[in-house]
Amino acid sequence: MDGKALALSLEAEMKLSVDALREKNARIPKLVVILVGDNPASQTYVKNKAKACDRVGFLSEIITLDGSVSQEIVLSTIHRLNKDETVDGILVQLPVPKHLDAKAIVHALDPNKDVDGLHPMNVAKLYENEKGFVPCTPKGIMRLLKEYKVDVVGKHCVVLGRSNLVGRPVAQLLLNENATVTICHSKTQNLSELTQQADIIVVAIGRANFLTSKDVKHAECIIDVGINRVDGKLVGDVAYDELVDKVDAMTPVPGGVGPMTIGMLLENTLEAYRMHEGESL
Amino acid sequence: MDGKALALSLEAEMKLSVDALREKNARIPKLVVILVGDNPASQTYVKNKAKACDRVGFLSEIITLDGSVSQEIVLSTIHRLNKDETVDGILVQLPVPKHLDAKAIVHALDPNKDVDGLHPMNVAKLYENEKGFVPCTPKGIMRLLKEYKVDVVGKHCVVLGRSNLVGRPVAQLLLNENATVTICHSKTQNLSELTQQADIIVVAIGRANFLTSKDVKHAECIIDVGINRVDGKLVGDVAYDELVDKVDAMTPVPGGVGPMTIGMLLENTLEAYRMHEGESL
Repeated sequence: MDGKALALSLEAEMKLSVDALREKNARIPKLVVILVGDNPASQTYVKNKAKACDRVGFLSEIITLDGSVSQEIVLSTIHRLNKDETVDGILVQLPVPKHLDAKAIVHALDPNKDVDGLHPMNVAKLYENEKGFVPCTPKGIMRLLKEYKVDVVGKHCVVLGRSNLVGRPVAQLLLNENATVTICHSKTQNLSELTQQADIIVVAIGRANFLTSKDVKHAECIIDVGINRVDGKLVGDVAYDELVDKVDAMTPVPGGVGPMTIGMLLENTLEAYRMHEGESL
Repeated sequence: MDGKALALSLEAEMKLSVDALREKNARIPKLVVILVGDNPASQTYVKNKAKACDRVGFLSEIITLDGSVSQEIVLSTIHRLNKDETVDGILVQLPVPKHLDAKAIVHALDPNKDVDGLHPMNVAKLYENEKGFVPCTPKGIMRLLKEYKVDVVGKHCVVLGRSNLVGRPVAQLLLNENATVTICHSKTQNLSELTQQADIIVVAIGRANFLTSKDVKHAECIIDVGINRVDGKLVGDVAYDELVDKVDAMTPVPGGVGPMTIGMLLENTLEAYRMHEGESL
């Protein structure tokens, strides 16, 4: 399952939409990313998001705040962006320095500009099966399944991992699409028994090559969300080579779920734009 | 598993707490229930909630609004109660008449007075494993499991039903307590295979005697949330007689989960009171 190719094709489609807006002299979608401090990894992530905006023709702005900035300044920056009608999406690059209250910062976002899907209003919507902004990685997984025509209705989907960013939301999305969902984690007993029965397996635990041949008899699809560095190489949570012959479809690492995440951020920004322009989400 | 006895003992405990408050001339916890229209079932539910408050010594008030009341009047009633410092818990009896926007009404509640646990802030907290108000029926189920020392850590819990009031929240609570959780529903294939493997089964689908002998080999515990009327008799979702010898513990209907629900409403009200008085939840 080629996430890189799918992300590129989605970007190409979005670029056409933005080109059409420019031709009409319409307002252009805009994403603002707030970066606090100078963590090199965060700087790279933020730059990649701005570059992706450039590729599809969105406007973007990176607001860099000093690592010692006060909570008040962060909040007032967000309040200003909430009111700014030229801004469609706002994203605070996490983690923020420890002296800041990350939760209060996320709660300060206008839920309609919360393109990361982290505001409680959006979390509650996901949980109650209503339309709202969905976190980018789980959304990217669902898009990959759809693109590769993996029908999840009534299927037994086993999700490994229960983080707020991936495991829990992807389990909810699968449930909302009428899958039977099992959530497993570090305390799960007899994990192999469950994965052996699964039609679809999503692994998001952050342990290199965790899922191996003994855990799978035959599965329709395995989604590997892991990005682990082993001897300088990127490795997923799934032992790809051991499992590739036991599944109908599988995402590689790199080039699977990863590239979809930024694609979905762009898509959420475009959805926010359409909502602000009065179209329904 | 005797939910009636447990609910009575919890009420007795709460009554002692309230008696102690009265002796100190402290403020007494107060629950306000808003009833819109004259649906007889709703009237009974509301009266039962007020009676339960009486039993433990809470103050309670039923605000009855005409069935044709405007959304504005409902919202202004809630805003007034949100500000009223003598009010700890506010509950809107659902369903409300169709011309009203039930969602907007629930969203108008102060999340800190939302003793039914339906406000998105509380939904999001449940989903992110943080303290908040939890809907009464799922909370009652967890309390029963705890009282009967059913350890859920690492156990395979199979939940039948995915409603926003019971199935989804109880699945989250079990997950938050480190259970492995499978959520099944009307689209699930091979349901029996899953229930046969379960350590703990929660059935909340509203179909009389749905879970039968063929679905269970041996289970530690079965929780029956169903309340169905068959030939004028109350019947659960579980065929109790067929299964009673296959489980270590099971809730009857009536007298199992049902009585716990009002007990948990009282407990949520007491928690709201303590929070308003400055104690942590």
